Amino acid sequence: MNGKEMKHAAYEALKTDANRIWKLIKVQMDNLTLPQCPAYEEVLDTQMYGLSREINFAVRLGLIEASVGREIMMTLERQLANLHESVTLKK
Amino acid sequence: MNGKEMKHAAYEALKTDANRIWKLIKVQMDNLTLPQCPAYEEVLDTQMYGLSREINFAVRLGLIEASVGREIMMTLERQLANLHESVTLKK
Repeated sequence: MNGKEMKHAAYEALKTDANRIWKLIKVQMDNLTLPQCPAYEEVLDTQMYGLSREINFAVRLGLIEASVGREIMMTLERQLANLHESVTLKK
Repeated sequence: MNGKEMKHAAYEALKTDANRIWKLIKVQMDNLTLPQCPAYEEVLDTQMYGLSREINFAVRLGLIEASVGREIMMTLERQLANLHESVTLKK
């Protein structure tokens, strides 16, 4: 991979992981636990921390801009907040 | 950075993070909490998870070999086990 391809691959990998977290949380909310459950909070915190480490790593290597990394995190947080709201309203 | 430089930088960044975890745990052991403390376990688990996500990310991008990633994790685990042992003997 050249530099441009590597940057593209890094971005795609991070978006894939953000999407994976969203799906995991959605499955949890739909089937397993209530959003108030401490286990849910813990899973979410750990997953978000893992993603933040990946983003930090990619930024340090110059694979993505710090602003893009922040945007990936913020987008995911917003999606999770929407998900949380929709589940809370349903129940 | 070219491909080779990028791979070198990825490896160095991962080793830096492994070292950062080791230092964090050492400080905790020396000053703050006993190894039996649940908070200690939790910090360690979270940190190890973060590092494993970085390694996984680097492997997926072809920046390091999977075997090198496993070796970084195993080396850190061994160092932490030694640290744990030395602190337990001292106390």
